[in-house]
Amino acid sequence: MNNPHTYSVIMAGGIGSRFWPMSRTKYPKQFLDILGIGRTLLQQTFDRLLHSCPAQNIYVVTNEEYRQLVLEQLPEIGEHQLLLEPARRNTAPCIAYACYKISQKDPAANIIIASSDHFIQHEAEFTKCLHKALDYCSTSDSLVTLGIKPSRPDTGYGYIQFDMDIHSEIKKVKTFTEKPSLEIAQEFINSGDFLWNSGIFIWSAGSIVRAFEKHLPEMALAFSEGSPYYFTDEEKGFVDRVYSTCQNISIDYGIMEKADNVHVLPSDFGWSDLGTWGSLYTHISPDQNGNALLGRNIKTYESQDNLVYAERNKLIVLQGVKDLIVVDKGNVLLICHKDHEQEIKQIVTDIKMEKGEDFV
Amino acid sequence: MNNPHTYSVIMAGGIGSRFWPMSRTKYPKQFLDILGIGRTLLQQTFDRLLHSCPAQNIYVVTNEEYRQLVLEQLPEIGEHQLLLEPARRNTAPCIAYACYKISQKDPAANIIIASSDHFIQHEAEFTKCLHKALDYCSTSDSLVTLGIKPSRPDTGYGYIQFDMDIHSEIKKVKTFTEKPSLEIAQEFINSGDFLWNSGIFIWSAGSIVRAFEKHLPEMALAFSEGSPYYFTDEEKGFVDRVYSTCQNISIDYGIMEKADNVHVLPSDFGWSDLGTWGSLYTHISPDQNGNALLGRNIKTYESQDNLVYAERNKLIVLQGVKDLIVVDKGNVLLICHKDHEQEIKQIVTDIKMEKGEDFV
Repeated sequence: MNNPHTYSVIMAGGIGSRFWPMSRTKYPKQFLDILGIGRTLLQQTFDRLLHSCPAQNIYVVTNEEYRQLVLEQLPEIGEHQLLLEPARRNTAPCIAYACYKISQKDPAANIIIASSDHFIQHEAEFTKCLHKALDYCSTSDSLVTLGIKPSRPDTGYGYIQFDMDIHSEIKKVKTFTEKPSLEIAQEFINSGDFLWNSGIFIWSAGSIVRAFEKHLPEMALAFSEGSPYYFTDEEKGFVDRVYSTCQNISIDYGIMEKADNVHVLPSDFGWSDLGTWGSLYTHISPDQNGNALLGRNIKTYESQDNLVYAERNKLIVLQGVKDLIVVDKGNVLLICHKDHEQEIKQIVTDIKMEKGEDFV
Repeated sequence: MNNPHTYSVIMAGGIGSRFWPMSRTKYPKQFLDILGIGRTLLQQTFDRLLHSCPAQNIYVVTNEEYRQLVLEQLPEIGEHQLLLEPARRNTAPCIAYACYKISQKDPAANIIIASSDHFIQHEAEFTKCLHKALDYCSTSDSLVTLGIKPSRPDTGYGYIQFDMDIHSEIKKVKTFTEKPSLEIAQEFINSGDFLWNSGIFIWSAGSIVRAFEKHLPEMALAFSEGSPYYFTDEEKGFVDRVYSTCQNISIDYGIMEKADNVHVLPSDFGWSDLGTWGSLYTHISPDQNGNALLGRNIKTYESQDNLVYAERNKLIVLQGVKDLIVVDKGNVLLICHKDHEQEIKQIVTDIKMEKGEDFV
C-alpha cells in the first residue's frame, strides 16, 4: 500500500518491569533482541510498519533518556520523527502529542498507533488487518482497534466485547474490560464475543482530534496550542511545559472506553504483548522436554518446561527442575516459579528501594 | 601437646568436582573460604593441626599445579614441607610418599593424615580425639582411624563396623563398606556398631611402613628407594619417575580393608567431608524459611530450603522455589534440585567433554 497519508506512531517509552531482569530501566525490552533473531523489538516494529507507510511517516515517541538508543537502532528516522517525553504520563498524552503534531503536517493523515515491544508472528496477516482498518477509518469517523482472537483465558490482558449483530468484518465495540479474574476471563472466552485488547489503534487525524476535544478537552487544548512550535526548535520547550501539566491517563480509560464511535477488527496474527516471561515462553520453540532456552550454552538434565535466558557465553546447567523462569543478566539472577511471575513487578519495586538503581 | 615426634600430612590435591561450579579444576574447594569466615578450608585444616604438632612438622601433599596456591595460603610452611605429585594416583601413593619421607627424617614419628577440605565444628573435641589416637598408636603397632558417629543414613560416605565386645575407647575394626544403598545405610545406623569413615588416620611411621611392605609391597619398595633423594634437590626427579609407575589405588582399598591391625576411635566432633552441597547445607545457619544463603545480595520470596551461593555483589532473587541448590560462579550457573546432587559429578564430566576446561 504505502499511502503517503498513512502515518505510524511507535510508543517506545515503557520500562518493561515485568520482564526484569532482562528489561532494565536503562535498557528496556523494546531495545533488546529478546528472541535472538538479530533485530530488537523496536526494529521489528519499525520493519513491520514499513509495509504500510513510508519510513519518513513513522514517528517514535519515547522518554528523553532513550533518545540515543532509538537513534542508534533506527538510523532511518530523522530527528523531527523522534518525539521525546520529558516525563512518563501514560498513553493519552503520548498519543495526543504525536497525533496533534502529525495532523498539523497532514490533516488528511490516517494514523497507526503501535507499541514498540509486541511480538507478531504472522506479519503478512498483520499488514492485511492494518490495511482493512486504514480503509475503514479513512471513510468513516471511527476509532478502530485491532482485537485479538483469544487462545486462552489470560488474566494479564484487557478484553473488548463486540456487537455480534453487525455483519461486517469490522465490529462495533460494546465494552472494554481491564484485566479480569480467571473465572471471568474463562466466561469471556466461552461467550465468543470477546477479544484481547492489543493496544494497536488506527484512526484518521480528524477522528482522534475530535475524540480528544470531546473526552479530554484540556489535553486537546494543550496540544492544539502547540501548532506554532511543532517541527521547530521550540517544540521541545513547548512539550516540556505542556507535559508538566498533563493528566496521567491511558488512552483506553481517557477515550476508548468513553467514545461511542469505537470499532474493532477481530484479528489473528499470532500476537503477544510480551508483557511477561510466560507470554514469551509461548513464542519460543521448546526442546522435547518443553524447555525454552535463550542462550548458546544452556544444558538441561531431567528438567522440564523451564524458560532460561543466558547472556553471551555463560553456561547454565539445570538438573532436576521444572517450571522455572531463570534469567541471568549482568549483575542480577532471577529464579522464579512460573506460577509466581506476576510478582516480578513488585519485586522490582522492592529491589529499587532496597538495593538502588543499579539492579533495576 | 605439640610433641616434636608428631607430624601431620594434609592431602590437598583433590579437585572437588561434586562441589562444582564453586570448586573448579584450577581452584578447587580446599583453596576457598566456602563458609565465608576469612580462612580457606586448607588454612582451617592447618590451624587445627597446630594444636597437635609444630608448624614445621606439617607436610602438604598436592598436585604440582596447586604449588603456588598452597605457598600463598600457608606462608608458614617451607618448600621441603610441600610434596608435589606429578599426577593424580589416589591416596595410597600420596600417603606412601609422605610417610616414607617423614620416616626417613624421624623414625620415631607419629603421623596424622588429614584431608584439606573437611569441615570440623568442634575443634577442641577433634584435638582430644587426635591425642587419644596418637597415644594409642605410639605404644601399639596399629593403624588408627577416626570413625564418626553417624547422624543420618548418608549414602555418600563409607562405613566402618567395629567390634563392640572390646571395652576400651579404641575399638577393633571388623569391616569397611563403601558407599551403601539407603536401605543398607539405614540398617547400619540401626545396628549401632557402624561409624562413618572420616579418612583421618593416625599411625606411627613404623606401623605404616610395615603395612605398605605387607599389603602394597611394590609401592613400599618404590618409595623406600627414595631415601637418598628425600630432602635433596633430586627429590622431584625421583618422585616424577616413581609416580609414573605407581598403582592408582586408595589407602582404604590398598591397606585399611586388608590389614588386621586397624582400630577406630568412635568420635563426635561435628564432621563433614563437605563432599556435596547438601553436606554444606547442614553446616550453614539457615534463615527462618530454611534458606542457606552464601552471598551479600540474595533475596528470597515465598521460597524454602534452598542453598544459594552468589559471588561478590551479584544479586540473586528467588521467588516461589524450594529445595534448590543455586551456585553462580564466574562463567557458570548451576541450578540443581537437592535430590539430584549426586549427578553433579557426572555433569562435570559431560561439561568438560562438551564445553572444555574453561567451564570445569
